[in-house]
Amino acid sequence: MNEIRIFSPATVANVSCGFDVLGFCLDGIGDEMVVRISKNKGVKISKIEGYDLPIEAHLNVAGVSAQALIDDAKPDVGFEIEIYKKIKPGSGIGSSSASAAGSVVAINELLGRPYNKTQLTYFAMMGEAMASKSYHADNLAPGIFGGFTLVKSVEPLEILELPTPHNLYAVIIHPQIEIKTSEARALLPQKVNLKDATVQWANVGSLVHALHTNDYGLLSRSLNDIIVEPHRSKLIPFFDEIKQQTVKNGALGTGISGSGPSIFSLCEGLESATNIEKTMRDIYKTTGITFETYVSKINEDGIKVI
Amino acid sequence: MNEIRIFSPATVANVSCGFDVLGFCLDGIGDEMVVRISKNKGVKISKIEGYDLPIEAHLNVAGVSAQALIDDAKPDVGFEIEIYKKIKPGSGIGSSSASAAGSVVAINELLGRPYNKTQLTYFAMMGEAMASKSYHADNLAPGIFGGFTLVKSVEPLEILELPTPHNLYAVIIHPQIEIKTSEARALLPQKVNLKDATVQWANVGSLVHALHTNDYGLLSRSLNDIIVEPHRSKLIPFFDEIKQQTVKNGALGTGISGSGPSIFSLCEGLESATNIEKTMRDIYKTTGITFETYVSKINEDGIKVI
Repeated sequence: MNEIRIFSPATVANVSCGFDVLGFCLDGIGDEMVVRISKNKGVKISKIEGYDLPIEAHLNVAGVSAQALIDDAKPDVGFEIEIYKKIKPGSGIGSSSASAAGSVVAINELLGRPYNKTQLTYFAMMGEAMASKSYHADNLAPGIFGGFTLVKSVEPLEILELPTPHNLYAVIIHPQIEIKTSEARALLPQKVNLKDATVQWANVGSLVHALHTNDYGLLSRSLNDIIVEPHRSKLIPFFDEIKQQTVKNGALGTGISGSGPSIFSLCEGLESATNIEKTMRDIYKTTGITFETYVSKINEDGIKVI
Repeated sequence: MNEIRIFSPATVANVSCGFDVLGFCLDGIGDEMVVRISKNKGVKISKIEGYDLPIEAHLNVAGVSAQALIDDAKPDVGFEIEIYKKIKPGSGIGSSSASAAGSVVAINELLGRPYNKTQLTYFAMMGEAMASKSYHADNLAPGIFGGFTLVKSVEPLEILELPTPHNLYAVIIHPQIEIKTSEARALLPQKVNLKDATVQWANVGSLVHALHTNDYGLLSRSLNDIIVEPHRSKLIPFFDEIKQQTVKNGALGTGISGSGPSIFSLCEGLESATNIEKTMRDIYKTTGITFETYVSKINEDGIKVI
């Protein structure tokens, strides 16, 4: 195999209560990448379509993560990467992660899978770090592992694969405004009330239990974020209205996807998800802000060869 | 049935990362209580053996929790309670909880079980509140439900029953010094770093996942508390040495039981637990401080009729 084409899906990080640790993988929306073996060692980004991103490998997250893998594997060949970008950078659904993760998963396939998924997440984290200025795996892990993931720790890197209830759907609305991850991070308090933190870790524990027991009601009651959302939601127009109406109309929970501006809802069943998408669209239609919406089953496979 | 005798076990709250929310139930160490129906309405504590505690029902946690149940059930009879106290008050292994929970479970049995376990925990919480000046269920829930529990929220009260790995044992060392819960609470910071809180909720999520997947290694790696233990452990003589040596000798994890002074270790298998008990005893023998140790399988039944 000299060439591979993969689909690298969008992802939702944080998932309300699980700031910096929880994430899940979407379906239907994602980048495509073609990676081929080249006689010239190293990494070359030969094409980027969709959005304007650096073509220089050392300035592109997909190039940097690929180089991290290559530095470790030291293969006798190099790689050429074509990126067909569908996930808008800065959307809050893991655009840079999809690139960073996609290139290392593709190269790993071409090399005969020398690395496991945690190792691949590690290499991808090196690429992500260039974009976010810190080491995070909360968008990378769900892309590479699929389903719901919990980043137990970054150093050493440990990823837990959580079970995915079979009838769970996500709805995303992406208002086409830009929020930089660094800006969203700057809004966060450095200190939080112990009392609030306690509520938050009860919810994280409950959410993990809900996934294991397929308990949609408990999942719904766990999807609360009293620490981060009150700060970051201010950057997202009509967040409160979207949250209120979607929950009223049957969403299990609604929160900020990553650092925003995208908003996600989780829903039991496709019918509910379609209904929630309509609720979101009806609210945003009146705002004059351009937006996109997506309905997606939780993607248990993650990145895949197509 | 006019009279019932129950065993109300000791419990471990917090369980390292799960401050205020996690707990598990011990076996072998606990109070006994005899509760009998009386023609005189209300609650009467007719006997207390073991430790010096208020005999007036309205000053005794078992009396207050019983009264809370009675106020709701309005039975045509009253109840007499005998308490055979084995768990030393202030030991950190749920002494007041065992009394508060025991009386309501016993009365519920005598009345033909009108209440479910969450309702019983609620009544017991009314008794506990007298002792701890706040509403907590982290020791009550494991006594009433058995096994590992997570108090998802106090208002409304929601308790989750977590699975218990079958070969899991606890070792307790109880240094016979007094630490008041209020004193241990006063030591806590009101604010914590968001970064530390994030580590803590990753560990809570991991611990719940470890219990569901029977993963002793992950359980071990989740038994960390970077928020509360650094403050409270200062009150417990030789805590650091106990922790270091028990973990070195194969304990899955070691932490403060409740607000101390008791210290718990979790171990895989009885042999390891017995070995860890010896480690603890060897350290404390040299200190001149009186102490007790217990080895206990995790008690999946909780309070039971004997």
